[in-house]
Amino acid sequence: MDDLWYSEYHTKSVRFSIQIRQQLHFEKSNYQTISVFDSVEFGRFLTLDGVMMLTEHDEFIYHEMIVHPAMAVNPEIKSVLVIGAGDGGVAREIAKYSQIENVDLIEIDERVIEVCKEYLPKTACGFEDPRVHVRIQDGLKFVRRIENTYDLIIVDSTDPFGPGEVLFTKEFYGHCFHALKENGILINQHESPFYPEDARAASSAHRCISQVFPVSEVFQAHIPTYPSGHWLFGFASKKLHPTANLQDEHWNQLGIETRYYNTQLHRGAFCLPNYVKEILNHA
Amino acid sequence: MDDLWYSEYHTKSVRFSIQIRQQLHFEKSNYQTISVFDSVEFGRFLTLDGVMMLTEHDEFIYHEMIVHPAMAVNPEIKSVLVIGAGDGGVAREIAKYSQIENVDLIEIDERVIEVCKEYLPKTACGFEDPRVHVRIQDGLKFVRRIENTYDLIIVDSTDPFGPGEVLFTKEFYGHCFHALKENGILINQHESPFYPEDARAASSAHRCISQVFPVSEVFQAHIPTYPSGHWLFGFASKKLHPTANLQDEHWNQLGIETRYYNTQLHRGAFCLPNYVKEILNHA
Repeated sequence: MDDLWYSEYHTKSVRFSIQIRQQLHFEKSNYQTISVFDSVEFGRFLTLDGVMMLTEHDEFIYHEMIVHPAMAVNPEIKSVLVIGAGDGGVAREIAKYSQIENVDLIEIDERVIEVCKEYLPKTACGFEDPRVHVRIQDGLKFVRRIENTYDLIIVDSTDPFGPGEVLFTKEFYGHCFHALKENGILINQHESPFYPEDARAASSAHRCISQVFPVSEVFQAHIPTYPSGHWLFGFASKKLHPTANLQDEHWNQLGIETRYYNTQLHRGAFCLPNYVKEILNHA
Repeated sequence: MDDLWYSEYHTKSVRFSIQIRQQLHFEKSNYQTISVFDSVEFGRFLTLDGVMMLTEHDEFIYHEMIVHPAMAVNPEIKSVLVIGAGDGGVAREIAKYSQIENVDLIEIDERVIEVCKEYLPKTACGFEDPRVHVRIQDGLKFVRRIENTYDLIIVDSTDPFGPGEVLFTKEFYGHCFHALKENGILINQHESPFYPEDARAASSAHRCISQVFPVSEVFQAHIPTYPSGHWLFGFASKKLHPTANLQDEHWNQLGIETRYYNTQLHRGAFCLPNYVKEILNHA
């Protein structure tokens, strides 16, 4: 085996490196560079502009935690808008619910979808469900034309630099608010509280969302391949509270198989460390 | 600045690297190599045998989580045995409680204590409290002579390889059981559930502890500089349950300042992901 290593700078002075068996794919799309690698420790993984998006071995954590909390709070969710998520992992988790009628998945870069279909079939299988409708479009442009349409919006964005930047603005969250129905929930990947630059992004996102949504809470998960391993998600809504309105029993009766998520962990994930609460409260 | 990097292999094919301003100390003690580095991102940090023990920037998470959960469950804890913990961080957190009468701290390697006193005063300040009594001794040898003496034992060990190995055996946990009083609690650092080798250590520790203690639970924390960032701790006891017996109100009235721990997070930390529960249940 070649002595080949993929490295990612979590900060300018912290580097995370993974030994690679082989680079399976590389291209420059109209929006970003797209690579797929095969690694010993994490299986295959996808990078966009040199940043790891998902690995076969820990993507289940991210995808379960960005989907199931909202579904367990409102069992009436039927229509979902997913922004980003070109790997199909979010769609795969949503498709586990029989009551779902429609999933609109808006991805700006068609090449991400095609590459994931070819190299990451365990996540891209989410596209196979007939209820999932893919539109290749700018997420901000799409959502600003919509009103009172979706029960749930999931923002599975890249970091707030490059193509993903607009998905962290107050303007965008305002459009999401209007695109949601009365019981609507917005879930977004919310960066990390640990390294200062990531923490500033988390703080800024929380400030913008809190200005738009009456309910705005943050929850956490352990995602080993993301910077610091400590990742946040936002749960914002017009009415429903992420723990007060949790339908534990109903969700448990559904018998949905998960490897990370459960309804006890759901409650636990909203119990944040003091330093994280401080970052968010001083947003 | 020299382009100097400290690297640690979290597995054979996963490497975590930190840029270093300067190596402040290096020695070979009778037990292990001891280094202290100054880094841009994490401040100063200590390594033993090439493994990071603590950094100035995230040690608060580890030390708060290994001390406060037990203290919040039993406000009557007066006498504590700490095994390992030569950096002083555990002693510092315990010393925040006025009811504590005696802390016996058993460290096998005197040089760790001396080096921490010189280079890591923010953690080593724990040794200054007059209730803390340091004994340079083998933890296993010390604890096996003791009966019905301590309210709390904290095992702040290195990984289960090298000098720390005996602190992960059923024999050792059995001696801890006998050294504890009727309401006694044992807390130990419990490795990580994510990478397979760490998960095997966590599984094995849980199996051994569960064979000895009637109550044996596991809780988690986000510790960015430890492998995968997902770290476990064990809470074992003769009687008291970590959440059913949690004295939330009492602890909150103490006004103890923490940056990670709070009593809501305490409950949340015991809500484990499914895959972690599986590792522990099949121990």
